[in-house]
Amino acid sequence: MSQKEIPYKIYLEEHEMPQSWYNVRADMKKKPAPLLNPGTLEPMKFEELQPVFCDELVRQELDDETPFIEIPEEIRNFYKMYRPSPLVRAYCLEKKLDTPAKIYYKFEGNNTSGSHKLNSAIAQAYYAKKQGLKGVTTETGAGQWGTALSMACSYFDLDCKVYMVKVSYEQKPFRREVMRTYGASVTPSPSETTEIGRKILQDHPGTTGSLGCAISEAVEVATGTEGYRYVLGSVLNQVLLHQSVIGLEAKAAMDKYGIKPDMIIGCAGGGSNLGGLIAPFMGEKLRGEADYQIIAVEPASCPSFTRGKYAYDFCDTGMVCPLAKMYTLGSGFIPSPNHAGGLRYHGMSSTLSELYDQGLMEARSVEQTEVFKAAEQFARVEGILPAPESSHAIRVAIDEALKCKENGEEKTILFGLTGTGYFDMVAYEKFHNGEMSDYIPTDEDLQVGFDGIPKIPGVQ
Amino acid sequence: MSQKEIPYKIYLEEHEMPQSWYNVRADMKKKPAPLLNPGTLEPMKFEELQPVFCDELVRQELDDETPFIEIPEEIRNFYKMYRPSPLVRAYCLEKKLDTPAKIYYKFEGNNTSGSHKLNSAIAQAYYAKKQGLKGVTTETGAGQWGTALSMACSYFDLDCKVYMVKVSYEQKPFRREVMRTYGASVTPSPSETTEIGRKILQDHPGTTGSLGCAISEAVEVATGTEGYRYVLGSVLNQVLLHQSVIGLEAKAAMDKYGIKPDMIIGCAGGGSNLGGLIAPFMGEKLRGEADYQIIAVEPASCPSFTRGKYAYDFCDTGMVCPLAKMYTLGSGFIPSPNHAGGLRYHGMSSTLSELYDQGLMEARSVEQTEVFKAAEQFARVEGILPAPESSHAIRVAIDEALKCKENGEEKTILFGLTGTGYFDMVAYEKFHNGEMSDYIPTDEDLQVGFDGIPKIPGVQ
Repeated sequence: MSQKEIPYKIYLEEHEMPQSWYNVRADMKKKPAPLLNPGTLEPMKFEELQPVFCDELVRQELDDETPFIEIPEEIRNFYKMYRPSPLVRAYCLEKKLDTPAKIYYKFEGNNTSGSHKLNSAIAQAYYAKKQGLKGVTTETGAGQWGTALSMACSYFDLDCKVYMVKVSYEQKPFRREVMRTYGASVTPSPSETTEIGRKILQDHPGTTGSLGCAISEAVEVATGTEGYRYVLGSVLNQVLLHQSVIGLEAKAAMDKYGIKPDMIIGCAGGGSNLGGLIAPFMGEKLRGEADYQIIAVEPASCPSFTRGKYAYDFCDTGMVCPLAKMYTLGSGFIPSPNHAGGLRYHGMSSTLSELYDQGLMEARSVEQTEVFKAAEQFARVEGILPAPESSHAIRVAIDEALKCKENGEEKTILFGLTGTGYFDMVAYEKFHNGEMSDYIPTDEDLQVGFDGIPKIPGVQ
Repeated sequence: MSQKEIPYKIYLEEHEMPQSWYNVRADMKKKPAPLLNPGTLEPMKFEELQPVFCDELVRQELDDETPFIEIPEEIRNFYKMYRPSPLVRAYCLEKKLDTPAKIYYKFEGNNTSGSHKLNSAIAQAYYAKKQGLKGVTTETGAGQWGTALSMACSYFDLDCKVYMVKVSYEQKPFRREVMRTYGASVTPSPSETTEIGRKILQDHPGTTGSLGCAISEAVEVATGTEGYRYVLGSVLNQVLLHQSVIGLEAKAAMDKYGIKPDMIIGCAGGGSNLGGLIAPFMGEKLRGEADYQIIAVEPASCPSFTRGKYAYDFCDTGMVCPLAKMYTLGSGFIPSPNHAGGLRYHGMSSTLSELYDQGLMEARSVEQTEVFKAAEQFARVEGILPAPESSHAIRVAIDEALKCKENGEEKTILFGLTGTGYFDMVAYEKFHNGEMSDYIPTDEDLQVGFDGIPKIPGVQ
């Protein structure tokens, strides 16, 4: 089929949507390092994770062998409400850049949560319901994950308790109201509702909270309340598994039209979007069936891949979670104010970290102002106003397309457009008013975080 | 094809998208009454409208005869970026209501303007560009239309001057920033930039503005600036023509699966969405080929159809626009604070008014709190958080589906979901906090507006 016949948007038919998630770990010869119990330093067992996570999700978390895991029908039905997401040919952007490159993006923002987070939220809510639980707890920073989870819980009539970082709770009242519309209870963190919250408030009166603190509160409530479990929107293997639906749909749509990407680009915070987008492509790469250039894009202000250490570290600042081996800036690293809230995580998915360490993907870091320039340029020609997180991928996609122009290369670029920026207009306003600043941590800044990475005898 | 095989979402293929708009006036035996020159009380001529609107749009405005008007290729290409919009089978809502009714909705919110307004904005921007104009002016209240127009102008590199009602400008900074992202200049109205603005500010210091005043400012700037014209997002015949793409797509999608709606429901402010949604169905009805129950839904606080008068009236409070015959509450009617900003217009499209007068459609009015209850119920099962405007249609669709349940009727209901409510969270917050009130104007309240309707000798 000639390129001329490729529509602006490729939608799979309902019957072409994935029936199974793809577990990229199954095709990795060297597996991601296991989670460790911070007390014993032994790999976490099913029984140890069970009090925190739903049984089925623990199984998925620990399963390094099964390549395809069936998507239960109830989840597939929910997916049908907002999926398949379109694979878009960025004809207008190509024209504007005057590039010979062919640019595609998989757009995950056409749902009320505004991002890809719903793909895993609905799966986690489903397994919680199936296990007969009453509800789940979680934390949210910018609010995308909390919104997605509240939508999913509302669908399955599950209680949903969200601990929202206090500064976001106050500055993003609209996100909070969306969650309330879906019946979630939203508590600003740190709060008086938990032991750890009370302790933090006592030690740091007036603190505006942090993601690490909100995680600790959510875990405390989940493990201490009958019929509740904790759920998380990124970093974990199970989340990458659920998010593989992004890549599977993208690949099916591309295969349908005989398109093969040369380059796949995604933003990376904890890795949920990037891991999902690249999954089936990485699978082909691991099995030696095809080759792709894969690029993770992260903010220069929080550069876990490009400047972090590959080491076992705590997933949260409260150090209540298991140790994970990952590219990390240290759980004590405090990222500077960067509006891409979803990319302000000190670590990175263990699976992606291992793939990166094996040289199967590369990483770039970009500065905030350049990211917003790309966002605005994209919005003006492609219509969609992108989320700041997604705009990191747009930045590199545009840069690569311009390189193609310089070199006269007709590369095919696929990037992940994870969501919309409708709740990020404060950041856009700062950009318009010239009040946005860039920040790159110095080596000394980073050393503070590195110093907090635990020394584990025999491992690091 | 059995109902079982109908997917959650029906997307037309690109080649199935409409090539022409449908002009319902062509099939009306008794045509809508013409616009009158307020000075001469004669029907407005091409030359009289030309200084205000683009030439081609004036032709469309005055054309009561041509049933199909080709959509220029450039506009069709833009449509391809965000259209076809999905026709959604509301399986989850049906299940929740436990109704035998089959509910479908045409969802127009999957674009950054968040509503159907983009369908006409891009057409009007295109004709302005084609005529060699430098830019356009308009007014916006809640901001949907202004956002849509700024997106369209950015695409065609046209200057876009938006007069935004001051109270919205201050209370909806996010909408304003979206417009700025697309390069529009947004001025709070009334402003010092126009003669009428300065006069209003002098007469009413501290006023927070009104739509009528913003229209007057935008018209003054358009007619007084070389290379500019004024554009409008609703009420006009040309707008209904462009919006027919909604109904044409909906009908094509339904025909493809052998679905025939018994009932078509849409919210109505100025009529742009309802007129577009019903166009091809009304055409069949006018030609005696099929019958449909068609219901316009308006807020009880601004009930032009259900309690207004069918009379010639001014389209704006400033009385600078031509007279239109329509169901009206009088251009001096001040609607109470109702969060469905897009439905707070004192009049109604002349075409819809005439169809309503001929008994070809009916109208209902609903109260705000009931509308938000429907909105929340819908959001929780169908995922999408609807705009307050759209939720008026949801309210009546749910009511009708419940009637079907009572009577054991398997009716097929189609309603228009015009947009998303992401910029309306202040209203949702009021609803959640129990701070939302209903308001129904008394007959005395309405009389004040009616007293301002001009008495036209020989006509009314």
